[in-house]
Amino acid sequence: MTELCHEGAALREACERVRREGGRVALVPTMGALHAGHLSLARAAREQGADFIALSVFVNPLQFGEGEDLGRYPRTLESDLEACRELGVDLVFAPAREAMYPDGFQTEVRVTGLTQPLEGEHRPGHFDGVTTVVAKLFAKTGRCHAYFGRKDFQQWRVVERMARDLELPVEVVGMPIVREADGLALSSRNRHLSESERERALGISRGLRRVHDAWASGARDAAQLTALVRREVEPTSDKIDYVALRSPETLEPAGDTIDAGVLLIAAHVGQTRLIDNLWLGVDARP
Amino acid sequence: MTELCHEGAALREACERVRREGGRVALVPTMGALHAGHLSLARAAREQGADFIALSVFVNPLQFGEGEDLGRYPRTLESDLEACRELGVDLVFAPAREAMYPDGFQTEVRVTGLTQPLEGEHRPGHFDGVTTVVAKLFAKTGRCHAYFGRKDFQQWRVVERMARDLELPVEVVGMPIVREADGLALSSRNRHLSESERERALGISRGLRRVHDAWASGARDAAQLTALVRREVEPTSDKIDYVALRSPETLEPAGDTIDAGVLLIAAHVGQTRLIDNLWLGVDARP
Repeated sequence: MTELCHEGAALREACERVRREGGRVALVPTMGALHAGHLSLARAAREQGADFIALSVFVNPLQFGEGEDLGRYPRTLESDLEACRELGVDLVFAPAREAMYPDGFQTEVRVTGLTQPLEGEHRPGHFDGVTTVVAKLFAKTGRCHAYFGRKDFQQWRVVERMARDLELPVEVVGMPIVREADGLALSSRNRHLSESERERALGISRGLRRVHDAWASGARDAAQLTALVRREVEPTSDKIDYVALRSPETLEPAGDTIDAGVLLIAAHVGQTRLIDNLWLGVDARP
Repeated sequence: MTELCHEGAALREACERVRREGGRVALVPTMGALHAGHLSLARAAREQGADFIALSVFVNPLQFGEGEDLGRYPRTLESDLEACRELGVDLVFAPAREAMYPDGFQTEVRVTGLTQPLEGEHRPGHFDGVTTVVAKLFAKTGRCHAYFGRKDFQQWRVVERMARDLELPVEVVGMPIVREADGLALSSRNRHLSESERERALGISRGLRRVHDAWASGARDAAQLTALVRREVEPTSDKIDYVALRSPETLEPAGDTIDAGVLLIAAHVGQTRLIDNLWLGVDARP
């Protein structure tokens, strides 16, 4: 049975009850429009021993900038609930905007360094919105494991940092990207893609696949590896925000010759902005 | 028995144990150099039903600005512990700076509006440091009542706002100012005052007393009430940072003719900056 609740108090009480009885709580924060990537998080939570899975659905206005796609972001609560039922999620927490940010709300949780490059440059304030809403979700859920997809690699690192710095009793878990059979990383925004845009969007995962294979063959030159992605994405996308090879921990440039790294990309296809990444030596072939 | 611990994990475990057994936890966050004001907070916690009182002692560098008195702030852990023992405080949490802010720490908790006027104008960044450290203390302590002195009236309001906005399971309680027999509000910084400075510092509470009496006699004109304080403090202090009559909830100007308000003052006497306030119609005669 999947329960639906709209109030933070109900989420808190449910989680406290589970823990009182010795159970382990998992939280899967989402903006809804659930796809197999989200569902893999709930499945991982169950497999890793959670006795109770709470999944939040909240399109968080704080993390959308001026001119971004807040209004256009898909909202599909009914089918989200259906998917959660099938998966055995215990509680779906879907608060109203006013419940999360009532009149007079004026607190912000910010991570400074990790939020500056990459998405931070292209979406100023975005991560402040993320960490603020996630801090609220963590406060309500209490001691738990919280599952994030590594498609939002930087977000995962930022949230992990926030939880550690504030000493929240939350274990932040980053799970691998889930892809379509042809390589496209799952994203709620994919439904905005037309058929021809979707075809072009495949340039991204194709580029990452080239990098995966080059790395497997011993390539370690950063410029050469990023060029492999650019070669695929430049002709197929409308604008590249960044292609960057970074340290997986600090997100600082990984150096000229690398022995570890994550290759991150953000690019626009039509009106849709897509992000993707490959954690070298860790992620499966895209 | 008062236990002393330096690790957040020990504080967390102790509080969780108490709650598991159905007990109520109280937290008294301090920067040490305890005086009767701090001790009144622990006493109030006990009277209001706490089963376990944790008192933190941490001179938080984040809340001191450039050129402020971080280095000079009194540190008296031995006598603080002695006072806690006498009072039956259960746990003193005295972390090292590196335990609170290890290498790589980069998260900030900020309240925006309430932090702007008054102390915010004169101590930029001060409240960001306060809310960041208090958020960490609240995270470690978990569900509790947290006691703050109303001498730091704005701080109390800011922390209360932060706890509410982030939906922390913490009830923030503001307790009345404790004064010396002659009216001086207790402060760890009072020990910096020379005998003659201490004499001059009394201008502040004398001014507030005049306001208390005028209010009791029906005075409601804001300019007239603040003038009563200025008349006492201008000749006795070296510099007034502000004398302001504000809404006790929003800290916005209370208006020309008031029906509620808090009169707040910050002034320098010698090298020492003192703050004090009077909550009209609520606080006892200073």
